[in-house]
Amino acid sequence: MGAAKPSIPKGTRDFGPRESRRRAWIFDTIRGVFRAYGYEPIETPALELLSTLLGKYGDEGDKLLFKVLNSGDFLAAAGPLSGPPEKVATRLCEKGLRYDLTVPFARYVVQHFSELALPFKRYQLAPVWRADRPQKGRYREFTQCDVDVVGSNSLLCELELVQIVGEVFRRLGVRVCLKVNNRKVLAGLAELIGAPERLTDITVAIDKLDKIGIQNVVGELVERGLSIEQIDALRPVLLLTGDTAAKLGRLREVLANEVGRRGVEELEELFRLIAAAGVELPVELDLTLARGLNYYTGAIFEVKALDAEIGSISGGGRYDDLTGIFGMPGLSGVGISFGADRIYDVLDQLGLFPNAVESALDALVANFGPDDLPYAMLVAQRLRHAGLATELYPEAAKMKKQMQYADRRGARHVVLCGENERTAGTVTIKHMADGQQRTLPLDQLTDALK
Amino acid sequence: MGAAKPSIPKGTRDFGPRESRRRAWIFDTIRGVFRAYGYEPIETPALELLSTLLGKYGDEGDKLLFKVLNSGDFLAAAGPLSGPPEKVATRLCEKGLRYDLTVPFARYVVQHFSELALPFKRYQLAPVWRADRPQKGRYREFTQCDVDVVGSNSLLCELELVQIVGEVFRRLGVRVCLKVNNRKVLAGLAELIGAPERLTDITVAIDKLDKIGIQNVVGELVERGLSIEQIDALRPVLLLTGDTAAKLGRLREVLANEVGRRGVEELEELFRLIAAAGVELPVELDLTLARGLNYYTGAIFEVKALDAEIGSISGGGRYDDLTGIFGMPGLSGVGISFGADRIYDVLDQLGLFPNAVESALDALVANFGPDDLPYAMLVAQRLRHAGLATELYPEAAKMKKQMQYADRRGARHVVLCGENERTAGTVTIKHMADGQQRTLPLDQLTDALK
Repeated sequence: MGAAKPSIPKGTRDFGPRESRRRAWIFDTIRGVFRAYGYEPIETPALELLSTLLGKYGDEGDKLLFKVLNSGDFLAAAGPLSGPPEKVATRLCEKGLRYDLTVPFARYVVQHFSELALPFKRYQLAPVWRADRPQKGRYREFTQCDVDVVGSNSLLCELELVQIVGEVFRRLGVRVCLKVNNRKVLAGLAELIGAPERLTDITVAIDKLDKIGIQNVVGELVERGLSIEQIDALRPVLLLTGDTAAKLGRLREVLANEVGRRGVEELEELFRLIAAAGVELPVELDLTLARGLNYYTGAIFEVKALDAEIGSISGGGRYDDLTGIFGMPGLSGVGISFGADRIYDVLDQLGLFPNAVESALDALVANFGPDDLPYAMLVAQRLRHAGLATELYPEAAKMKKQMQYADRRGARHVVLCGENERTAGTVTIKHMADGQQRTLPLDQLTDALK
Repeated sequence: MGAAKPSIPKGTRDFGPRESRRRAWIFDTIRGVFRAYGYEPIETPALELLSTLLGKYGDEGDKLLFKVLNSGDFLAAAGPLSGPPEKVATRLCEKGLRYDLTVPFARYVVQHFSELALPFKRYQLAPVWRADRPQKGRYREFTQCDVDVVGSNSLLCELELVQIVGEVFRRLGVRVCLKVNNRKVLAGLAELIGAPERLTDITVAIDKLDKIGIQNVVGELVERGLSIEQIDALRPVLLLTGDTAAKLGRLREVLANEVGRRGVEELEELFRLIAAAGVELPVELDLTLARGLNYYTGAIFEVKALDAEIGSISGGGRYDDLTGIFGMPGLSGVGISFGADRIYDVLDQLGLFPNAVESALDALVANFGPDDLPYAMLVAQRLRHAGLATELYPEAAKMKKQMQYADRRGARHVVLCGENERTAGTVTIKHMADGQQRTLPLDQLTDALK
């Protein structure tokens, strides 16, 4: 026992049985909705070429890529190891771990384009890796659940994602609100104040409105070089009030430029579709919604839980030129990513995991020793064939020990089939929640446990 | 379109929708059986500390580990980069990708020991990475499906794995044979010929009997330094014939030493349990079965498909001291690993994937334009709520184009709901397999498509 207790890299996690069952329930629920809407799964490798990943997430993102050392005599092949670490890294490593599922999806679409039926609707649930500084709620290995459609400009795709968000959280039992914005509206605002090239600065600042308040955002915009006049022109639009129709009406008046007008029209059409489809999810226009990513060109989505103080739990939008980075311009797509880790935290905080997920074992069949074993094996097999998760205790240990084990495993029932039961062709069932015991003919066993 | 077509690292793969659906079916089937037997899922990170992984797979294995470059200024922290590449690598990298699921499981058990109820029965389905030279059927990223129980010496655990093997392949529809051996019998043989320290040499050579034949194995044993007398003493045992009972009876006579006798007793008891449990899977004793891994101490398992020329598709065994490598000796375990990639190849070769897996889309609802859209959306939602995977075509394209898309997607039905259907409250269903069309009241739609 002298060795140090083993551990795992910081920012990574082990998930025990209970967490894994709960996570599997979240994944299965999300996957089930994706399937219901006709989306298809794909799997891409965790390892991508660094040439695929580098330059897609900004300089900061490049630094956060996990790079995998080349095999064999990597030193000889690397040449002189001087210069900035990022340059040296690309001589030592040609592969990296994927950073998200969007860039690999774009790579997949370009690489397999001739095999695809457009529109191509795919989902992928898989881990991604980022060398971020680990902190509460932020991990270096975490799972993304992405659903995207490429090859159609129709706003019905946006509607479908809205429906998917509604259905996922309905099935999970979480009350949420979907916030919607449109990048073209933001671009129209930038143009309106005569600073179209400052769109990114503006949206990054606006993105913080919720967190740091209007005064600090104004300060940030000043720092980023906008004039007071420009900021004043923005201000009334940012602080629009009223319902969605009122906001859209006001925007339509203010935004006379083409891009802004198109953005307003897209939003109007999307809200019309949402109403026509009878979506029950609350959907609200939020002009402060910009999200950090630069590649959105149309709709922008973000989902917040209504009953938990946890930031965004899903988000996405339309990108008109994602595959352009791989030499295939003009293919439009729209997608949304469900944050499984944060959804887990919401469900946990609100106590919303269903009971069926909390118990993995329907029955523990007690072991009374060699003479009774064949009967116990028969009983266990009957339960399994009826679809009940069943374990036969592997040793003829004292009954107290077996009961303790059943308790620690969270077994719903213990099934006792000793000599009395065996000779009578019966079983005794102990219901663990209330300790009640009853003896039944073997034939009634599976019905009694369902 | 000037950029080079993107690609992925050699030895890795993209799985398209069809392959992903098929793979998901394999995983779901295996997972369903593991659950039925009361095993619980765990998840461990893809990234492990190199201190956890190094030295666990032999020198060759150490070289095959994918190592992940440290973040930040890794060069400054590494010190001088001279010496053999493996040494330098450990100064540049503190993390690596897991090589299998067994060592991470041992690490997990030691790290979380106080939280576990023993026996601890867990499964894990997850990718692993090996920097092997890529070749047909061998990949650098592939998925393992492991099921293990630790903390019990009972042979009922071995029986349970035999039952699991039988049930997995019954559900998959693959005819297989399970080969069983016992490491103690092999150790007894080594002792019998007076070369107990040569157990590894002998088993590695025996492992090749199927592939290279008895003459070449004898040659290899000579090369490894065994005398002709020793090899002659081994020979009759290796070429035992008859049924399992006959083989075991002969072994019992020959193996007078303690370890060999215990091995024979374990085999006899396991075959008794298999008979008592009514296992239908063919199970045969195969003394040539040794498998490369050195940590097995009792039962050794290997599964072969009867109708396909593909090597072992699952394998495992008992290891009495797996957690010893992490400072916790004496915890016995037994497990088996299902090779999902090879099982896929068998199912593919034999055409055994069920039809339900081959079609992802139950219905494509055609799009006739804005006037008919609300009705089409209603129809699509009805189908989804009835559990049918349904897509609404996102654009009011020509019907020919929509039909072609339905065909390429492998949709089972196209649902037409244009002006006639809308005003009459009906739908027209086109069954894609035979082209038959019929018009029904909306209320009968979901039943007709199930």
